Amino acid sequence: MRVRVPLHVSGFWVPHITNNPLTTGSIGAGITLEPLVEAEIKSGSDNRVLVNSVILEHDIINEVKKIVGVNSVNVEITSPSRLGEGLGFSAALSIVVAASALHNLGKPLTLNRVGIIAHEVEVRMMTGLGDVVAELRGGGLVLRLKPGAPGVSELDVIPVRESVSVIPCIVRPGFTTPQMLRDYWHAIKEAGERAFKKFVAEPSFERFLELSYEFSKAIFMNRETDEKIKELLHKHISSGNVRTYFIKKGTLVVVSDDPSEELINTLRKNFSKVLGIFKLFPGGTVMML
Amino acid sequence: MRVRVPLHVSGFWVPHITNNPLTTGSIGAGITLEPLVEAEIKSGSDNRVLVNSVILEHDIINEVKKIVGVNSVNVEITSPSRLGEGLGFSAALSIVVAASALHNLGKPLTLNRVGIIAHEVEVRMMTGLGDVVAELRGGGLVLRLKPGAPGVSELDVIPVRESVSVIPCIVRPGFTTPQMLRDYWHAIKEAGERAFKKFVAEPSFERFLELSYEFSKAIFMNRETDEKIKELLHKHISSGNVRTYFIKKGTLVVVSDDPSEELINTLRKNFSKVLGIFKLFPGGTVMML
Repeated sequence: MRVRVPLHVSGFWVPHITNNPLTTGSIGAGITLEPLVEAEIKSGSDNRVLVNSVILEHDIINEVKKIVGVNSVNVEITSPSRLGEGLGFSAALSIVVAASALHNLGKPLTLNRVGIIAHEVEVRMMTGLGDVVAELRGGGLVLRLKPGAPGVSELDVIPVRESVSVIPCIVRPGFTTPQMLRDYWHAIKEAGERAFKKFVAEPSFERFLELSYEFSKAIFMNRETDEKIKELLHKHISSGNVRTYFIKKGTLVVVSDDPSEELINTLRKNFSKVLGIFKLFPGGTVMML
Repeated sequence: MRVRVPLHVSGFWVPHITNNPLTTGSIGAGITLEPLVEAEIKSGSDNRVLVNSVILEHDIINEVKKIVGVNSVNVEITSPSRLGEGLGFSAALSIVVAASALHNLGKPLTLNRVGIIAHEVEVRMMTGLGDVVAELRGGGLVLRLKPGAPGVSELDVIPVRESVSVIPCIVRPGFTTPQMLRDYWHAIKEAGERAFKKFVAEPSFERFLELSYEFSKAIFMNRETDEKIKELLHKHISSGNVRTYFIKKGTLVVVSDDPSEELINTLRKNFSKVLGIFKLFPGGTVMML
């Protein structure tokens, strides 16, 4: 079986923690991206998860196995992003590994059955609160209206510009999701609710870009950092080529209608890693027999 | 703005009528298909809906305008299927016309806002009860778990065979959805509930094919018709090339892993119209700025 999962980056969000992983999650808005995470679910008793040809050992994998009650999962993944880069790869990994675990049981699987396990694992590990549902149902710009697992959460989708490119760059390496949730909890809650309310009243792609910028200025981007980035991108912003930028966790997301080589070189020179040029992906996870 | 909508054909379903269009709908399962319905939403005050370069006048269009409260919609549609062919084109038309109406108001639009209007129109006209939600969120094989409009309904998605081709053929021209709902109401309810229960217990692509065949045998396909089709397709069924067939409304749906020219010619010779060779489309409606 093959599974294809988009990556996902939230622009703003409000975490909702309950005593039940199925109702725990977040509201907010984010974009689903391609190139996709592509996975081949293998049959047989081999027990390994390969990511870009390298064996991955991670608690997420063990947690999925424990929940489903299997001893082995067997997946080969190719991915344009890795854990910790802020593009929701942990959610994609959880989805793919959950599909493999259910497949090994020989039981019928559906997108919701896979997604409920993946969401629960993300919640337990605190690696993500809304990426699984967004990546599962996808849609370019996804609005998460109600928190929770697939079947509990509610989503809507907003029209996007087909031409848009998204260039994520690592600006704070090693800054993890659990650390972010611990250090910025109250600020995220407050700024997230403000952005969410404004967005729901007038949901559009332009508004998403504005509010993601505002949200990240309130949380991840002090005035100094913001001014440094603005100066760096000045030429590309004033030409209209760079529409906006925002920071999520340790990742700067630059949004451009037509990224020039010069822009990419500027980013490469100034940040520790440019993750690539992504496009908005209008769909969600696909499982093919 | 451009809108792309998959077509949709249900294999089995149970209608649920309430006094509220938002909770009226159906549960059941169906497949979303490509080639897609592609639409260009035009700005300006021109008032017309073109389908494959021909002006379409239909109550669906007037009903959308009335609900949204606009005088004009302006859309150019290219579609591989037309109204009355059993592939959910009325739902695709409602979605596209609703997007145009909201666009004309200059208000922010989302997939749910468009879908709620389209669903209400389909319910009022009795042209469809589940096609809008399936086409909006899509997914190859879509399971409708809870009836209703987008935001009310609940969906799940089952992995499909990537290789599958779907060949719809008109076998009973002019047989409409309102007529079908009137003439077969009780039979549909009974056979639909039976199929739905079996499917939810063990949702898989193979099971969908079996249950769609059973459902259509109980409703649209008497023994004589079934035997005639079986005989006609005998060679292709025994070679494993034709996996199954089922009838929905006036449309015979032949499912094949590798449709040969001979198969297509056989269908062309024996039925009034072969609509084309479709593939399962794993996604839903996409709106692009």
